[in-house]
Amino acid sequence: MINPKFKAMLSARSVIRELSEYATQRGEEIGYENVFDFSLGNPSVPVTEGYTRAVIDIHEQMEPVELHGYSPSLGNTKVRGIVAESLKKRFGIPYDTRHIFMTSGAAGALAHALRAVTVPGDEVLVFAPFFPEYIPYINETGANIKVVDADLENLQINWEALDKAMNEKVSAVLINSPNNPSGVVYSEETLVRLAGYLGECQDRYGHEIFLISDEPYREIVFDGGVVPYPSRYYDNTLSCYSFSKSLSLPGERIGYVAVNPKAVDADILAIIFGQISRGIGHNCPSSSVQLAVASVIEETSDLSVYETNRDLLYDCLTDLGVDVIKPAGTFYIFPKALGGDAAEFCRAALKYDLVLVPSDNFGVEGFFRMAYCLDTEKVERSIPVLRKFITEYKK
Amino acid sequence: MINPKFKAMLSARSVIRELSEYATQRGEEIGYENVFDFSLGNPSVPVTEGYTRAVIDIHEQMEPVELHGYSPSLGNTKVRGIVAESLKKRFGIPYDTRHIFMTSGAAGALAHALRAVTVPGDEVLVFAPFFPEYIPYINETGANIKVVDADLENLQINWEALDKAMNEKVSAVLINSPNNPSGVVYSEETLVRLAGYLGECQDRYGHEIFLISDEPYREIVFDGGVVPYPSRYYDNTLSCYSFSKSLSLPGERIGYVAVNPKAVDADILAIIFGQISRGIGHNCPSSSVQLAVASVIEETSDLSVYETNRDLLYDCLTDLGVDVIKPAGTFYIFPKALGGDAAEFCRAALKYDLVLVPSDNFGVEGFFRMAYCLDTEKVERSIPVLRKFITEYKK
Repeated sequence: MINPKFKAMLSARSVIRELSEYATQRGEEIGYENVFDFSLGNPSVPVTEGYTRAVIDIHEQMEPVELHGYSPSLGNTKVRGIVAESLKKRFGIPYDTRHIFMTSGAAGALAHALRAVTVPGDEVLVFAPFFPEYIPYINETGANIKVVDADLENLQINWEALDKAMNEKVSAVLINSPNNPSGVVYSEETLVRLAGYLGECQDRYGHEIFLISDEPYREIVFDGGVVPYPSRYYDNTLSCYSFSKSLSLPGERIGYVAVNPKAVDADILAIIFGQISRGIGHNCPSSSVQLAVASVIEETSDLSVYETNRDLLYDCLTDLGVDVIKPAGTFYIFPKALGGDAAEFCRAALKYDLVLVPSDNFGVEGFFRMAYCLDTEKVERSIPVLRKFITEYKK
Repeated sequence: MINPKFKAMLSARSVIRELSEYATQRGEEIGYENVFDFSLGNPSVPVTEGYTRAVIDIHEQMEPVELHGYSPSLGNTKVRGIVAESLKKRFGIPYDTRHIFMTSGAAGALAHALRAVTVPGDEVLVFAPFFPEYIPYINETGANIKVVDADLENLQINWEALDKAMNEKVSAVLINSPNNPSGVVYSEETLVRLAGYLGECQDRYGHEIFLISDEPYREIVFDGGVVPYPSRYYDNTLSCYSFSKSLSLPGERIGYVAVNPKAVDADILAIIFGQISRGIGHNCPSSSVQLAVASVIEETSDLSVYETNRDLLYDCLTDLGVDVIKPAGTFYIFPKALGGDAAEFCRAALKYDLVLVPSDNFGVEGFFRMAYCLDTEKVERSIPVLRKFITEYKK
């Protein structure tokens, strides 16, 4: 018998995917260059030449049996060491090989981190607005997602809402900075206060509360800013990373979990992740992709296009009087929908071939998300259309 | 708090892994060439040159943003079509793109197949002897593994034991032909009878019973024989494949599930697998590896070395009077341990630097497994040592 739970999921379509499919279909009618598709977060800049060179070199030079042989289930030991060394150098945390677990992207990283520090029935807090895939990521572990209402002022943390949501069943708190969908980066002040609060809660409830930090956008930061690294502020932190965005490699499924060396059971957590893999069919990411990213560990794609696009859109929106927080990173912007009804607003935008995503799926109402991982030329062409739409929508 | 279930798994070490680690350590003492390590099933022949050429060509010629972009979660559509076409041609089953779901190896394939057709509390039957990882693969879905006692005569199916194990809670039956650890291939007669029996049980219990067929060794078959393809005999079959052994690519984590087009819900099962991925962190296998295997879909590594090794070991063992079924495929052989105590027998073998795996972990007692994915030169050198050990053990 087909599992009815998964069968039922088929009817709950993803709004983002539906909009993206609409954009593709519309593109076939009027030419894709005429559809301003801000729906999907698929990187628009190429991987570095160094990466491509590394893949070719590895395949030309290494013994195939060694290159393609079983990687240890925690990841290639040398690659784990290189990741540890790089993080240590950048963030001053004394990571070691044993604290790094290689995964199939951030989804794989979260699947392991969440299972390691929760038992069925536990609660995992997430902060609105949040990436909607957190719902299946968390709920399929047996733990339950609980949403903390948004800080609608700054999109940092709504402390009152956090305190209301917190209870003894909470075993993990999931954050995402820089944030999808808002582009907001948690400030040092926010992280210090969060660490203090979680520390108090650990004492109050007598058990650990892990901070799971989802960081696929860590390297996309604007205005010469720095993304405060959450693990520096709170020991029980599991940092989940993906090279999808920094190296424009989403299809290669490569990332890791980095366990703070001061976390509880820090020396065995990666081994525990390895045990978790046995039950979810993970094993390890592609051995050749592991080697290739390790050889360009300090490289990123040319991410400056996202800042250029951010400036174009932010300036246009503020000029039009739209209420929006300036993204400090990512390739998203999250303005307030005019009139407050995001679904209605985004529906109206489609008439201008502007594909925007209403915020309801991200856990808040009245906003919309634009993913500006597009050629700047296209963003430039979208500006007059956006102006026209918003001006006419105001009437 | 660290999940205590996974923490407890750390103390339950894998015997195979322990033996392999022992072999490595012993190799450091006396030279690895002097350790006859038959513990691990890691392919010993290189991938084809065609595969390596394909990886290089893809990286040299394709647009990086297209090559490394998000693959659809069911797998690259073109790759799925190529797999379907190849299976259709070989096995006469009218597979189509929609019946193929690309996975991270056979472990990924089984993780999806098992979850799709069971609900927590269901039972999944496996036949002894079986690959020990089936235990976490199955039990972590929420369903429970139930072992059918072995047919100790032929290592086909013990029909009486199967009928004893069968009950209304059984929603899937997992087979593995050619078999790890025995090298036995299920005959057409076995598969016809199994299909008839499962059909009767479906009628009796009023629900589907899926046949999940784990086939990583499908292409390693000896004496010019053919491996009967289970899906040809039973409609509700999910064939789980990995390129790990046929192309010697275990580290690349690439495989698929092929849904029999006549299975219940055949047209939506791959989409259901896609929903399951969202909860277990799967997404899809590496996009470049998908393209590379698709371009050499009809190729295999030179697998003839395994038949040569099989002959050497089988002839030696039978000559020594050891009771053993001649493997028809894989790179394993599964003889009876002299004296009946497999653990004691394998311990004694270590004094000769012969690393053999006792059968208890595979669900039967009194056998041992030898993985002969080694250079033939080494297998040849092991023969006099094996002779000496067994002759002296008999005394």
